Amino acid sequence: MPTTSYKDLSQSFGEYFTSFKGSLPATPGNLYDPVKYFLDLDGKRVRPLLVLIAVDCFKGDVKKALPAAAAVELFHNFSLIHDDIMDKAPLRRGKQTVHDKWNNNIAILSGDVLLVKAYQQIAISQNAGALQEIFSRTAIEVCEGQQYDMDFENRKNVSLDDYLEMIKLKTAVLLACSLQMGALCAGAEPKAAEVFYSAGRNLGMAFQLTDDHLDVFGDSGKTGKQEGGDIISNKKTWLLIKALELAGASQKRTLEEWVAKKEFDSSEKVKAVKNIFSELQLKGILEKEIDTYYEKAFTELRTACPNREKIETFISFIKTLMRREK
Amino acid sequence: MPTTSYKDLSQSFGEYFTSFKGSLPATPGNLYDPVKYFLDLDGKRVRPLLVLIAVDCFKGDVKKALPAAAAVELFHNFSLIHDDIMDKAPLRRGKQTVHDKWNNNIAILSGDVLLVKAYQQIAISQNAGALQEIFSRTAIEVCEGQQYDMDFENRKNVSLDDYLEMIKLKTAVLLACSLQMGALCAGAEPKAAEVFYSAGRNLGMAFQLTDDHLDVFGDSGKTGKQEGGDIISNKKTWLLIKALELAGASQKRTLEEWVAKKEFDSSEKVKAVKNIFSELQLKGILEKEIDTYYEKAFTELRTACPNREKIETFISFIKTLMRREK
Repeated sequence: MPTTSYKDLSQSFGEYFTSFKGSLPATPGNLYDPVKYFLDLDGKRVRPLLVLIAVDCFKGDVKKALPAAAAVELFHNFSLIHDDIMDKAPLRRGKQTVHDKWNNNIAILSGDVLLVKAYQQIAISQNAGALQEIFSRTAIEVCEGQQYDMDFENRKNVSLDDYLEMIKLKTAVLLACSLQMGALCAGAEPKAAEVFYSAGRNLGMAFQLTDDHLDVFGDSGKTGKQEGGDIISNKKTWLLIKALELAGASQKRTLEEWVAKKEFDSSEKVKAVKNIFSELQLKGILEKEIDTYYEKAFTELRTACPNREKIETFISFIKTLMRREK
Repeated sequence: MPTTSYKDLSQSFGEYFTSFKGSLPATPGNLYDPVKYFLDLDGKRVRPLLVLIAVDCFKGDVKKALPAAAAVELFHNFSLIHDDIMDKAPLRRGKQTVHDKWNNNIAILSGDVLLVKAYQQIAISQNAGALQEIFSRTAIEVCEGQQYDMDFENRKNVSLDDYLEMIKLKTAVLLACSLQMGALCAGAEPKAAEVFYSAGRNLGMAFQLTDDHLDVFGDSGKTGKQEGGDIISNKKTWLLIKALELAGASQKRTLEEWVAKKEFDSSEKVKAVKNIFSELQLKGILEKEIDTYYEKAFTELRTACPNREKIETFISFIKTLMRREK
């Protein structure tokens, strides 16, 4: 009997994942210790939960979808370990990253093993053939998104369309893939599963744009991140790109001066750039944009799945995530 | 009609692989340019050839096994790109490595994409489920082998068994996997395919030990490598490990002194270490060891495959490889 409480879904996944981690070999320790360390960092596990929620929406057997849920979580962890090397990030989920705690070589190899382990989970899933096709296509897209993200750092002109395409590839398609895989595990019609894919992509866009929003307008006490971190590092987010698009001549000059400055007082820069964002009323425009993605996703979910009660439960759950402050 | 000329097999694979390369997207260029560059370096393509030879031995349809052959070649290239980062190698097949020509980040991501592309080829192979199981297990083992290899650099004591286990994982299992996958593509009995796996592993051990042999006893004019490169860098190969095992007290002291020296004349070191290898008659012992692996492989191939003519053609082909001087 599939369960409708997401706490139960989380718990089922947690048990499966714990047993998966327990099955990893002990040696070579320099390969499996970092893998276990990273998997133990306990992320939010949004992606496997989305797989299982989709299963639940189509009244499938949650137990049989656990390997597919594990696959997306393992893939996500693979991509984080490799991204952290590329971004030279010292911290992930408040703890030392793998390349920082061990070294780059070990982080490369630990990531590689996780990607293969993800495929092993796909292979033991129901409907493995169809799942692998979506999964591989998504995996390629995530790599492409990461490459675009790195490219953008050195590119002067990034349009809003470029940016939206990048976050779609880097972030949104994996959420999309999670919902589609869950639907397929539950035996949903391929058409319905594709609409779930599209809904997941819209949710992913909304989540990423919310991150951009929180960086500037969030309460740093709650997000746990430095206010305006993206502004300080000149990250080309939706806000900066849109601001440059809408700015008048003098606002544009001010923005470009702040971006060009090598030495500056961080809080002064954040204040000045936020001031322009505010003049351009970007907070409201971005919130509207985010809402549009959410609304599209809700419509798609309602269209694809005949089970009204399950879908409304799912939508309520998303709405609690929408109100997140970190 | 399957063909028996390996030139034809190579050509079939070459055409398939060229068309595969042509199907790669243009953008993001910083992801796909390095992938195409590396795939164009034209390695020996031993692994895909082994897949197709196995197909031929069991009278399978070579055309249908081309994706599986491409998968092992793509996997091999993935592992080379990542290994080159880890080894900080400036050259591969006489050309600049990806991380050296672009950078580490791009090399990590290009490798990642190749691994996913390998799985996409497996997915469109005949008998995809069985193939993927062997392929994933092998992929994990190759990562483990690479980790052991890195660990050995910092370990004082590496036994001959440790070393043989490492080269089995890092090198031999992929050749084993190639033969097994080919046999399965041709519809061979799983038992026979497993014996092909074992034969491939023994061939892989022989190939790797031949590399160790050529480094010290090969003609550097033919190998294109510095004579005694492994000796100069203190690489723990079969020869050094065996020498330390068999050496008398004074020989052991001499070896250890050379290993410990920070500054030395390279040719003097090579001469001194080779002298001990010669006193211990290691050349002959290693050649016997290599022959034993080859003989095991030949026996296994003859046992597993009823087609005497095909197998003898295969064995003759291996014998030409055995006489390789580079």
